[in-house]
Amino acid sequence: MTGAPYAALEARFARIGAVEDAAAMLQWDAAALMPAGGAGARAEQLATLRLIAHEALTDASLSDLLAGAAAQPDLDDWQRANLGEMRRRWLHATALPGDLVAALSRACSACEMRWRAARPAGDFAAVLPDLARVLTLVREAAAAKGARLGTTPYEALLDEYEPGGSTAAIDRLFDDIAPRLPNLIGRALERQAARPAPLPLEGPFPVDAQRRLGVALMRRLGFDFEHGRLDVSLHPFCGGTPDDVRLTTRYDESDCGRALMGVLHETGHALYERGLPAAWRRQPVGAARGMSIHESQSLLVEMQACRSREFAEFAAPLLRETFGGSGPAWEAENLYRLNTRVARSPIRVDADEVTYPAHVILRYRLERAMIAGDLALEDLPAAWNAAMRDLIGIVPPSDREGCLQDIHWYDGAWGYFPTYTLGAMTAAQLFAAARDSDPCILPAISAGEFAPLLAWLRANVHAKGSRYSTAEIIAQATGRALDAAAYERHLASRYLAA
Amino acid sequence: MTGAPYAALEARFARIGAVEDAAAMLQWDAAALMPAGGAGARAEQLATLRLIAHEALTDASLSDLLAGAAAQPDLDDWQRANLGEMRRRWLHATALPGDLVAALSRACSACEMRWRAARPAGDFAAVLPDLARVLTLVREAAAAKGARLGTTPYEALLDEYEPGGSTAAIDRLFDDIAPRLPNLIGRALERQAARPAPLPLEGPFPVDAQRRLGVALMRRLGFDFEHGRLDVSLHPFCGGTPDDVRLTTRYDESDCGRALMGVLHETGHALYERGLPAAWRRQPVGAARGMSIHESQSLLVEMQACRSREFAEFAAPLLRETFGGSGPAWEAENLYRLNTRVARSPIRVDADEVTYPAHVILRYRLERAMIAGDLALEDLPAAWNAAMRDLIGIVPPSDREGCLQDIHWYDGAWGYFPTYTLGAMTAAQLFAAARDSDPCILPAISAGEFAPLLAWLRANVHAKGSRYSTAEIIAQATGRALDAAAYERHLASRYLAA
Repeated sequence: MTGAPYAALEARFARIGAVEDAAAMLQWDAAALMPAGGAGARAEQLATLRLIAHEALTDASLSDLLAGAAAQPDLDDWQRANLGEMRRRWLHATALPGDLVAALSRACSACEMRWRAARPAGDFAAVLPDLARVLTLVREAAAAKGARLGTTPYEALLDEYEPGGSTAAIDRLFDDIAPRLPNLIGRALERQAARPAPLPLEGPFPVDAQRRLGVALMRRLGFDFEHGRLDVSLHPFCGGTPDDVRLTTRYDESDCGRALMGVLHETGHALYERGLPAAWRRQPVGAARGMSIHESQSLLVEMQACRSREFAEFAAPLLRETFGGSGPAWEAENLYRLNTRVARSPIRVDADEVTYPAHVILRYRLERAMIAGDLALEDLPAAWNAAMRDLIGIVPPSDREGCLQDIHWYDGAWGYFPTYTLGAMTAAQLFAAARDSDPCILPAISAGEFAPLLAWLRANVHAKGSRYSTAEIIAQATGRALDAAAYERHLASRYLAA
Repeated sequence: MTGAPYAALEARFARIGAVEDAAAMLQWDAAALMPAGGAGARAEQLATLRLIAHEALTDASLSDLLAGAAAQPDLDDWQRANLGEMRRRWLHATALPGDLVAALSRACSACEMRWRAARPAGDFAAVLPDLARVLTLVREAAAAKGARLGTTPYEALLDEYEPGGSTAAIDRLFDDIAPRLPNLIGRALERQAARPAPLPLEGPFPVDAQRRLGVALMRRLGFDFEHGRLDVSLHPFCGGTPDDVRLTTRYDESDCGRALMGVLHETGHALYERGLPAAWRRQPVGAARGMSIHESQSLLVEMQACRSREFAEFAAPLLRETFGGSGPAWEAENLYRLNTRVARSPIRVDADEVTYPAHVILRYRLERAMIAGDLALEDLPAAWNAAMRDLIGIVPPSDREGCLQDIHWYDGAWGYFPTYTLGAMTAAQLFAAARDSDPCILPAISAGEFAPLLAWLRANVHAKGSRYSTAEIIAQATGRALDAAAYERHLASRYLAA
């Protein structure tokens, strides 16, 4: 039987979880449906819910309850893992003094506003003072959190997105692949140039038809519309809660690929949320493990499964039927080549699989240097452009396409970037293990059958929630620690093979 | 300067208000968008938010703060009214012991579930035990609340929907009109029968076109889509918050009138919410005054303004254009007669203006008798049918069209029914006063101009929030206490004139 302190903690965290779920739904609504005039009232609602959750997490009695529960001999493994996650959340919530949290929140809001104007103008100088204020406060927060968590300042930031993430492990992975990236990109482009260019699909692609196709593919992948929706927002995302997953996309009637690939990507996130352990809803151990596992699920679906030749074989007739297309452009092989084009682009969100790691590695190195105090903000644009030239071989025409392109630093999300490429590497390693474990997975995709893949992901990733660490999940599922090998093999076989 | 206790109360109620706003948005989403599988998680979110608000309202320190604020000499009239509303909410929240609240909530949920099955079967006996449990607890709650509020038990229930409502005042109004209703209904039907029946509009009426027309009319009426939306739900309602008003309707492609009149009705509610005093958002004094004023705003728009001959003149060409109609059925006079048909129906929600008060008066009398212990639940079906025969002249074919038709008693909303007819009478008295005050109001409606009407409503009703009592708002706006005269004049001129 579970004694008092742990049970009391579960009750508290269930309440925090319900408040956070409510906030998640309201954030989704704000992005997908809310009329502009509702923004002020919504901000009050969200700020109030966050304050309520924060107060519950920093309640003075929590420290004793956590200590009391840790001493309970009667907890099972899930409960003990749950207790660990509670403690992690409590450490994060109590690490910063209230005035620093408030100052950071204000500085990030101000900087993000300034960035929204400075980015289109490519005017880094205009946002520099605000960004400097953000960086000062983020460094202060990183130092305080690091002291509390027993990590380096950068790792304390990383821990919010990637619990237990270590710079040593990331450096090992990134330093392994980074020197080979320029050559890899060059060879993939040479190979691509040696073949005839894929034929573009001719539109128009009516929104209704795109939506219908997206919904049909979501169903195929295993998305349950009894527990979720697909709507539209300016910036596509996967929101809501595990029992009510809200995906969004954005349609362009002249291009069907973008919304479709976006829907498939977000469906990967959605399947993960939906597959989290139902017995642990609203408890910390029932939540997604972290951003790299989350991104691995979207990239596994989008990049590994749905940009494969097998998927193109399945999807080609559907696309022809949906948009009334015919001719060689609509053949599977052409679709596959459209979905695997490589280009040197300065823009991360437009990047292909081959160049993407370069975008992430340069941001990771730059943000670590800035947090460490080794790179002055004034020198960021030059450092950015130099790294772009070294890794991808181009220089952005202006800071708009350079260090101003991403919102992350300007709204305070430092330590987030590496999770994109950790996710890509994890996706490759998981997908390879899944195929080894069940040889039907890839052939089934040619027939539009994703059940074998989903079954493997459910058992090996989704249902584990936060019961294990990221490293443990990967090791249990693939038999070894995360490395870049599967990812490099994937890139080589897709982009370099003769 | 405002001293500490009042300021502290404002801060507390601002937080309660934000939590209640969040819950309102989530309830709207549950009705309009949520997939069925999200219901369990949503129930957790809503229960948690309600508990948080309830805990804040019953916090032990509130009593002293209310007393301290009451002693402050520095409060202005709005602040003092706000304090009065805070006190009212606190009295309601603290009147019932926690176990009674919980028992009532469980009993109502169980009874509502049973009712959902019993209604289609017309099986009152099946729901009787659950309803008896609800009634027992409601009577217990009414006695406890009455003792705390210093009212009769029934008035304590009424007070939740109609603050300050008194049975003496309602009896005076209802006893005045009730004896004349059978004759009024009979004469209206005779007059209607003496004329050729209005021609039905021939459909189909595509949903898209109905929606376009609804949106166009909402805009005309003054609904601001920067601060609201129109969506679809099974049971149309007006939800959301004053800065983000969420209306819903339901479309039937064989009938354009129902959704349209529903949209106009809900727009009346929405204009009221939107017009509440912006300076008092999330404070009790900034909230809608009560259900009778709320219903007066929807009925003023739907019944008084939009079933008028003037509205039909404006709307007829729009309808023809929207649905491609032509011929005599689409002429203004025919539309007007379609919108003012009278019929003896057993169903309240289908009732016209002439028979509606009879539906409400019978429910009011029955629920008062049940709360007083003067009518046993076993005798409800017979009492219902007898009252229907006396007032409307028909007997429902079964309890399904009789005492099982409304959800109110089964989900615990006792004391709500009278507000419908109080609202109808208030609408008539307000509309008459508005037209006296600004003779342009009615002619402007012929031209699709609602700005003069809205300006009068904003100043005389909406902007007052809960600063005054219902009786004060009516007296200030119309120069006298609420009576049935304007309502009877309205019915006579529309339904009895030669």
